[in-house]
Amino acid sequence: MAEKAPWITYRPTLKVLDCTIRDGGLINDHKFTDETVRAVYETCIAAGIDFMEIGYKNSADLFPKKDFGDWRHCDEEDMRRIVGDHDPEKTGLRLSAMADAGKSNWKEKVEPAADSVLDMIRIAFYANQVSEAAEMVHHAHEQGYEVMANLMAVSNITEAEIDTVLEAIKPTPATTMVIVDSFGHLYREQIDLLYRKYAEAMEGTGKEIGIHAHNNCQLAFANTIEAIILGSDRVDATMGGMGRGAGNCPMELLLGFLRNPKFDLRPVVDLIQNHIEPLKKDVEWGALVPYNITGQLNLHPRAAMEFRTTKEKDDLIKFYDSIMADI
Amino acid sequence: MAEKAPWITYRPTLKVLDCTIRDGGLINDHKFTDETVRAVYETCIAAGIDFMEIGYKNSADLFPKKDFGDWRHCDEEDMRRIVGDHDPEKTGLRLSAMADAGKSNWKEKVEPAADSVLDMIRIAFYANQVSEAAEMVHHAHEQGYEVMANLMAVSNITEAEIDTVLEAIKPTPATTMVIVDSFGHLYREQIDLLYRKYAEAMEGTGKEIGIHAHNNCQLAFANTIEAIILGSDRVDATMGGMGRGAGNCPMELLLGFLRNPKFDLRPVVDLIQNHIEPLKKDVEWGALVPYNITGQLNLHPRAAMEFRTTKEKDDLIKFYDSIMADI
Repeated sequence: MAEKAPWITYRPTLKVLDCTIRDGGLINDHKFTDETVRAVYETCIAAGIDFMEIGYKNSADLFPKKDFGDWRHCDEEDMRRIVGDHDPEKTGLRLSAMADAGKSNWKEKVEPAADSVLDMIRIAFYANQVSEAAEMVHHAHEQGYEVMANLMAVSNITEAEIDTVLEAIKPTPATTMVIVDSFGHLYREQIDLLYRKYAEAMEGTGKEIGIHAHNNCQLAFANTIEAIILGSDRVDATMGGMGRGAGNCPMELLLGFLRNPKFDLRPVVDLIQNHIEPLKKDVEWGALVPYNITGQLNLHPRAAMEFRTTKEKDDLIKFYDSIMADI
Repeated sequence: MAEKAPWITYRPTLKVLDCTIRDGGLINDHKFTDETVRAVYETCIAAGIDFMEIGYKNSADLFPKKDFGDWRHCDEEDMRRIVGDHDPEKTGLRLSAMADAGKSNWKEKVEPAADSVLDMIRIAFYANQVSEAAEMVHHAHEQGYEVMANLMAVSNITEAEIDTVLEAIKPTPATTMVIVDSFGHLYREQIDLLYRKYAEAMEGTGKEIGIHAHNNCQLAFANTIEAIILGSDRVDATMGGMGRGAGNCPMELLLGFLRNPKFDLRPVVDLIQNHIEPLKKDVEWGALVPYNITGQLNLHPRAAMEFRTTKEKDDLIKFYDSIMADI
């Protein structure tokens, strides 16, 4: 056979980030028990995962501490309650937190990396927030962190807007520009176009391209694979696919696909059984039909999430009709 | 922009086959109520779907009528009870049944098309059954049917075996050779290789390449899209993704992706709400972790299906360990 079989080999440079607590926290206001956060942390280490995103560095004014759990703010003492002094070299795991443009008092909250258990800050922003995002990248870099730039909702903006964002991020010290499909709308060909666009824009900078996919159309894992095939070495997933609305790329599928022997699926299966599945008593996520519909239509899943909290939550046709009447 | 956006256009030649009753029947021994079968039939017509596979033409000796529902055998009078004299021209829908090599008394059961509501017979076979399959293709064609050839479990045989099957099917009057990922194991690059292999083997015959995907790794829809992008014009899906084990490519995702205005998603959403979701009281399907595991390991989902009938069905780590000990 002349053909190669890349799916049974691996790229040692590929790094996996778990964002279960950060993204999953959007469905429970980050009110995880310490036991759950600790279990995810220990699972990341045992499974050979490269990064764990433990939450948001968001403003306590916008997200009051009485209404939101600790992982909306990621105060140093709260993180240390779970991870102690966390040694990235010994554990093989680096910790990350996300700061949203417009929602973070980042100048105060992103303190020197030398004093933090965090190794990385990810800056999440909409296209119109790119100027603040660039400032945030610089600030976090100056504090000593690796920094990623996550342009959200990329399916919902123009090509010119994307180009402008990429141009603005290019000269910053961000190591990675992430393709973020917030609405779970993108198909394979669109991932290809975006990957090429991002990679061309960043050419010569050494920046990597990341992928953060949502599962509205059951394509989170497929689109993550697609980005990997194209060359992405920074990929996001969550345990059991937990995440807002339809959820994310499931870690159990991703690790089963990756062939680096350093990854171990067993601790992830254990975590899903003992810590993630039990969360479903209180919160819901997954590629349900209402999320299929918002994903296909390139809409924020907001309407579907709201509908799923009503008494009529299983009245699919009512939801379909209401969405179609609105667009 | 120099780029094209093929995902908002369509190929009028692309035909969709619904196999909800045929494949879904593998989880309830084809014991559907007439109401359900009629609802699927009417939905296919209303949604603009091209083919409905109503069941198997399997042997009543192997599958006794006391143990299996009517759709395991597809006797003419049973089909007519649902679809009357069925007019393909008026409804836009053609009916299909599947005959398994080794499990069908096809010489008696596949009667002249002129006397049947069926327009198409699909021959399902494993590689080692290709000689019988070729005979079955000829027989069904002589009876006046369109015929498809479905080589099952293609992820589990050698390249040489695939080549031999393709060579044997090439001179038959089958119109379509279908890529069937019975174990839900294939990744995007493997779909690409298989599509090219199938297409090259059939070059010059006018035969089309079909795709029938299973959802063990949440890739049924993605792999179906991939085959479509490569040129496949004959694609299978089921309502709500219903099917054995992890299920199939969900029709609601496929129709949302296809842009031919003849397709209408609304009747499918209605059917899912009123007829498919209620089936979940008695049967289970979906990309659960045990199916993720068998899919990743290229195993028949049998062990996972059996495990899900036991008291320990949610003991994921026990299932994982038992599978890993076995391979």
